Amino acid sequence: MGIGKNMTRVDAKDKVTGEARYTADLEPKGLLTAKVVRSTIANGVVKSFDLSEALAVPGVVKIVTCFDVPDIQFPTPGHPWSVETAHQDIADRKLLNTRIRVYGDDIAAVIAEDEIAAARAARLVKVEYEEYEPLLTVEAAMAEGATRLHDEKPGNVIAHSSFTVGEGTYEEAVKEDGLVVIDRDYKTQSVQHCHIETPVSFAYMEKDRIIVITSTQIPHIVRRVISQALGIPMGRIRVIKPYIGGGFGNKQDVLYEPLNAFLTTQVGGRGVRMEISREETLGCTRVRHAIELKVKAAARKDGTLVARKLEAYSNQGGYASHAHAIVANTSNEFKQIYHDEKVLESDAYTVYTNIATGGAMRGYGIPQAAFAAECMADDLALALHMDPLEFRRKNCMRPGYEDPHTHVKCNTYGLEECMEKGRRFIHWDEKRKEYENQTGPIRKGIGMAIFCYKTGVYPISLETAACRMVLNQDGSMQLSMGATEIGQGADTVFTQMAAEVTGITEDRINVMSTQDTDITPFDTGAYASRQTYVSGMAIKKTGAIFKEKILEYGAYMLDRSQDTLDVENNSVVDKETGEPLLAMEELAATAFYSLDRSVHITAEATSHCKTNTFATGVCFAEVEVDMPLGKVKVTNIVNVHDSGNLINPKLAAAQVHGGMSMGLGYGLSEQLLFDAKGRPLNDNLLDYKLPTSMDTPDLNALFVELDDPTGPFGNKALGEPPAIPVAPAVRNAVLHATGVAVDSLPLDPQKLVEHFKAAGLI
Amino acid sequence: MGIGKNMTRVDAKDKVTGEARYTADLEPKGLLTAKVVRSTIANGVVKSFDLSEALAVPGVVKIVTCFDVPDIQFPTPGHPWSVETAHQDIADRKLLNTRIRVYGDDIAAVIAEDEIAAARAARLVKVEYEEYEPLLTVEAAMAEGATRLHDEKPGNVIAHSSFTVGEGTYEEAVKEDGLVVIDRDYKTQSVQHCHIETPVSFAYMEKDRIIVITSTQIPHIVRRVISQALGIPMGRIRVIKPYIGGGFGNKQDVLYEPLNAFLTTQVGGRGVRMEISREETLGCTRVRHAIELKVKAAARKDGTLVARKLEAYSNQGGYASHAHAIVANTSNEFKQIYHDEKVLESDAYTVYTNIATGGAMRGYGIPQAAFAAECMADDLALALHMDPLEFRRKNCMRPGYEDPHTHVKCNTYGLEECMEKGRRFIHWDEKRKEYENQTGPIRKGIGMAIFCYKTGVYPISLETAACRMVLNQDGSMQLSMGATEIGQGADTVFTQMAAEVTGITEDRINVMSTQDTDITPFDTGAYASRQTYVSGMAIKKTGAIFKEKILEYGAYMLDRSQDTLDVENNSVVDKETGEPLLAMEELAATAFYSLDRSVHITAEATSHCKTNTFATGVCFAEVEVDMPLGKVKVTNIVNVHDSGNLINPKLAAAQVHGGMSMGLGYGLSEQLLFDAKGRPLNDNLLDYKLPTSMDTPDLNALFVELDDPTGPFGNKALGEPPAIPVAPAVRNAVLHATGVAVDSLPLDPQKLVEHFKAAGLI
Repeated sequence: MGIGKNMTRVDAKDKVTGEARYTADLEPKGLLTAKVVRSTIANGVVKSFDLSEALAVPGVVKIVTCFDVPDIQFPTPGHPWSVETAHQDIADRKLLNTRIRVYGDDIAAVIAEDEIAAARAARLVKVEYEEYEPLLTVEAAMAEGATRLHDEKPGNVIAHSSFTVGEGTYEEAVKEDGLVVIDRDYKTQSVQHCHIETPVSFAYMEKDRIIVITSTQIPHIVRRVISQALGIPMGRIRVIKPYIGGGFGNKQDVLYEPLNAFLTTQVGGRGVRMEISREETLGCTRVRHAIELKVKAAARKDGTLVARKLEAYSNQGGYASHAHAIVANTSNEFKQIYHDEKVLESDAYTVYTNIATGGAMRGYGIPQAAFAAECMADDLALALHMDPLEFRRKNCMRPGYEDPHTHVKCNTYGLEECMEKGRRFIHWDEKRKEYENQTGPIRKGIGMAIFCYKTGVYPISLETAACRMVLNQDGSMQLSMGATEIGQGADTVFTQMAAEVTGITEDRINVMSTQDTDITPFDTGAYASRQTYVSGMAIKKTGAIFKEKILEYGAYMLDRSQDTLDVENNSVVDKETGEPLLAMEELAATAFYSLDRSVHITAEATSHCKTNTFATGVCFAEVEVDMPLGKVKVTNIVNVHDSGNLINPKLAAAQVHGGMSMGLGYGLSEQLLFDAKGRPLNDNLLDYKLPTSMDTPDLNALFVELDDPTGPFGNKALGEPPAIPVAPAVRNAVLHATGVAVDSLPLDPQKLVEHFKAAGLI
Repeated sequence: MGIGKNMTRVDAKDKVTGEARYTADLEPKGLLTAKVVRSTIANGVVKSFDLSEALAVPGVVKIVTCFDVPDIQFPTPGHPWSVETAHQDIADRKLLNTRIRVYGDDIAAVIAEDEIAAARAARLVKVEYEEYEPLLTVEAAMAEGATRLHDEKPGNVIAHSSFTVGEGTYEEAVKEDGLVVIDRDYKTQSVQHCHIETPVSFAYMEKDRIIVITSTQIPHIVRRVISQALGIPMGRIRVIKPYIGGGFGNKQDVLYEPLNAFLTTQVGGRGVRMEISREETLGCTRVRHAIELKVKAAARKDGTLVARKLEAYSNQGGYASHAHAIVANTSNEFKQIYHDEKVLESDAYTVYTNIATGGAMRGYGIPQAAFAAECMADDLALALHMDPLEFRRKNCMRPGYEDPHTHVKCNTYGLEECMEKGRRFIHWDEKRKEYENQTGPIRKGIGMAIFCYKTGVYPISLETAACRMVLNQDGSMQLSMGATEIGQGADTVFTQMAAEVTGITEDRINVMSTQDTDITPFDTGAYASRQTYVSGMAIKKTGAIFKEKILEYGAYMLDRSQDTLDVENNSVVDKETGEPLLAMEELAATAFYSLDRSVHITAEATSHCKTNTFATGVCFAEVEVDMPLGKVKVTNIVNVHDSGNLINPKLAAAQVHGGMSMGLGYGLSEQLLFDAKGRPLNDNLLDYKLPTSMDTPDLNALFVELDDPTGPFGNKALGEPPAIPVAPAVRNAVLHATGVAVDSLPLDPQKLVEHFKAAGLI
């Protein structure tokens, strides 16, 4: 075992057999249930409540309304805290809101003895509103005289950022003779994470402290946000994270934990549970931002990209959440992935509206960037009569690239090799040629898309992680991380890393799958594809200390010099010969129980990460388009990833498969729709078209493994990347098959039929 | 605040309001319930079971019998493990026993969907026995040809130990002319701990590990014993200890946790709960050993004690449990508390019988020793016509005493001052005189008893303890101890100690009341009155490291030399002037979130304790004896304790009150009775006469505070001592009142009436 081996997931058996305990499985007897009362308008103000009927429901314990909560605005995104006010997240909501900004806004909460009473009472709460016209689009929200959604942002624009790379302006650059120019408007839609386990938590009080057990990616950040929301010190809050049934960024927002924490204080510390339904999750938690990307691009006849101009408008929905960080990331990737010989101009806006709030979702702005950049690449290539792969080879991110603003670098560069590997796998050249001159209603095509993705958030934000190791009496080890298993396999790769650095084998390492802010070393959590990179460094550092302590005790027992010893395969061994000298179980038992020298061998360390590196990759997709039906069948697809060394190739492939599946939904079927009042139209898994296994082709995952010098084990980001390039690759394959460039997602049948009709193809 | 202050218990509010969560409060939904099937004979063998009717009970999931458990014998006592076989506890039972040694022995277990089904099925299990005559007394068990209860101990004698202090033999010493000699047979009874919360646990599996949540004093030892009992490595077991409702030593045995752990493995890792009823607790867990102490003692006319001889017979009951350690402790205290000018001979036997098994109970053999030694003192004083206080002053343990065998020393000596303080409080001289010549049926008397008690178990056994401190973001601290709060107030005094050594105030210290062997620093647990002494040292050591780390970060932030700084009252201060320079909350927030230097300040350390010291004390009791009713009313009572510096005087007094109440029950009413078949006759709290608040006089607690140089804060044992001297003090007061020397406990009405009749007093 060790790094690079296909260890079976540590949680495989428990998760397959149903033994794994998630938040709801841990609920003790006798909890109260809370239900959120939601606004039935998307824009307005609560004037008053009539609670009489609701309070009369048997089993109702208490109803708390937006008039009862602390007058504190707090932020929800799962970012590391900044001690500098300027870098803190936007605090724009209360535990319950009087000013309503989304349909289904949290305006009151019913606490009852059981779920049925709570739900019944919630329905019976009568609300008097002052209602305003919902602002559903960025245009409407930015229009002169639009209702102000938050007092702090008069024009509803949360942020506008601009940058220019290169010299001069786009307009000047395109004056050059003979350029091929495109001017397009690429649009991405609102999609939802659709994690299996909806948000669920329970909270109770102990002494004067609040304990919250919750399904989150970021327990330590949840602690901080509850502290802010309730106005109590962080040490008075304890957050515990059991196994979670997926998050994909939605559980990187602190959604209902603060309210749950507050509610227990309203019933004298009794336990209160909250479970958010699928409908509430789809409409009232977070979505991936719908971003409109206006792209102008100019290239010379030889394919050289000369200049680009991006205007991006991010539809934030009712609350700031991760806000401008998303579209800032979008602009950055758009900048990084291609090289503009002269100039790139970028403007990005994040704008409050009255649709569901945008937050973090796998890729964090990059799927939107990749859609725009990769559509642009194919659209330009088409205009240039150039092979799209050739266009990319000519213009894509170069080895050694360093971002001029963040200074994140390609410490290793595998993008071209990824393209080459995928090209061969998919038979790109043959297929591009084969599908050149098709007729008839069903046509085939092949497309591709590339991307880059940084690893973690340095230097934009803090990257810190800690780890604790404890030697058990039998020579096994407890491995405790602040970093979180959220279904991605983190606990398994952490176990492999710990084995690699300590010499204790994986079967003797008990990774603690539960994070508990009272106990667990600090870590900001699972997001930004950071954990194997950033938290892995903490394992490496802690493991070295731990091993030294083992060797120190071994040297004492063996009466030998410590520097002649090493640990291998659960034994202290001779460093030179590898000869086993002392079994770990004997060492451990002696360390615990020796009458001469009792020592409990533990180690704990923080790694403050001050590096970053680019991961890159490509998707190649082959499709068969049934034009009369508007149906796209993906007949072959491969992702090739440059993510550094793989800790566990099998898990890495599984991660890629999951991301590709998500990308296919993004590309072909998923879209959260709203009516004219801002009410979600398809907030259920019947109408919201998540791809099923029946919709999913065989997924192929290939890797280019380069030993990244900054990664703790030569590794770099792989968590989010797989989801990024799939949608544009499919879009470009449809373009190749039909000649029709669809500039918005998803490529669903209705949209495709309209496009094919307009193009005279059907 | 800090050491020596009356901080309110950290758990006061939660325990008073019922918010504190004990094991049963933590049970998740859907647990199975297990019920032990108990033998209806006290001595014999299970031949076979008929389970047909039991299995037919709806809701029964599985029945496991003594024929189904691993063929592994294991020990139950909560001693630190020894890596040397010779020092390991006696492994004399299996998870379920085929060979029955007590009435109510564990012979099978029913697992069912609920409590009712489990209990019903347990009653329907039919058992065929081979039955032997029960051996209820030491005499019967040691008799020639007695049934062998355990194959390893043919004569049923577990151990026999002897020692002599001084020169020659007792018989030689008493040849001296003019000696006053007594020869008595003092007997103590079986009593039970009667903790409010009976043993309760639940267990389930996670991955290939067993998790047990249990009401125990010794979670880390429970882990080890489960490992032994099931034959699986310790690292595969996790034990969690929530708040517990008392233990008093009964939960220093590993009673049902191994069986509970085994049962979950028999149902595929599903959660199984076990709750032992009050009746089972009284008859089938542990009792304080009934010890018969044959004492010969000789003194000169001037009161000088010349020689003593002790023969002690400890009735062990069916299983070894703590076994000979108890009566060895008895003999030691008998030796230590008085000085024999010539010689002391001691023989002690521990003998298997078929009554309820003796285990650890507050005082661990010393209450029995004190009963014998203090009865002897008064009986000798009476024979010498000497004031009993004067006799003690003349012969008791001297300053600087060092045990010739264990080398435990009086590092501080407060015994004489305790006697003096008590004498004045109770008006000893006046009362002794006043009650000299009484007549009539109701008579008054005053008596006393002294004792000594070592602190922890060094050097007999391992004393090791660890502590972990974690700085929270708000400058508050998590304090994690392996040592356990078992109702005695440990968490509160640990908090005070941590405040004292770190400069963080008590209100900002969150002591972790739950121990979890996966997480919590190692400590052997709550017993031997060791925690403030042994575990307190770990706090002192860890706190020093923790403070250094705080100062290191403070020095970085303040750009000053670390050795010019200190921590006081939640601030980094100038060491010289005490001027506050940096608030702990600012330091903590910066340490967590600094982009320059992120460090998570934690400290963890083991203290291996290699010291011990004697605590001593005295009880004075004044009684009114209604001879026709055989009723003793305690009209005034005071304990005076020499326990070093008090960490929290109010809690110390409460500890003394609790012990005195226990001592009164031991002296006057409590006794577990068995019929001729070995079946408990009064295994319920109606018939087992625990004193109630109505039976309890005002309890007075005084202290002599000497700064013990070995205690981490000058402190020494106070946990068990208060229970020790009360029963003999009351017995001696009855002697003073009536002239009748009762040589056995308890002094209940039936016994007293018999004695008074025999003495012709009624």
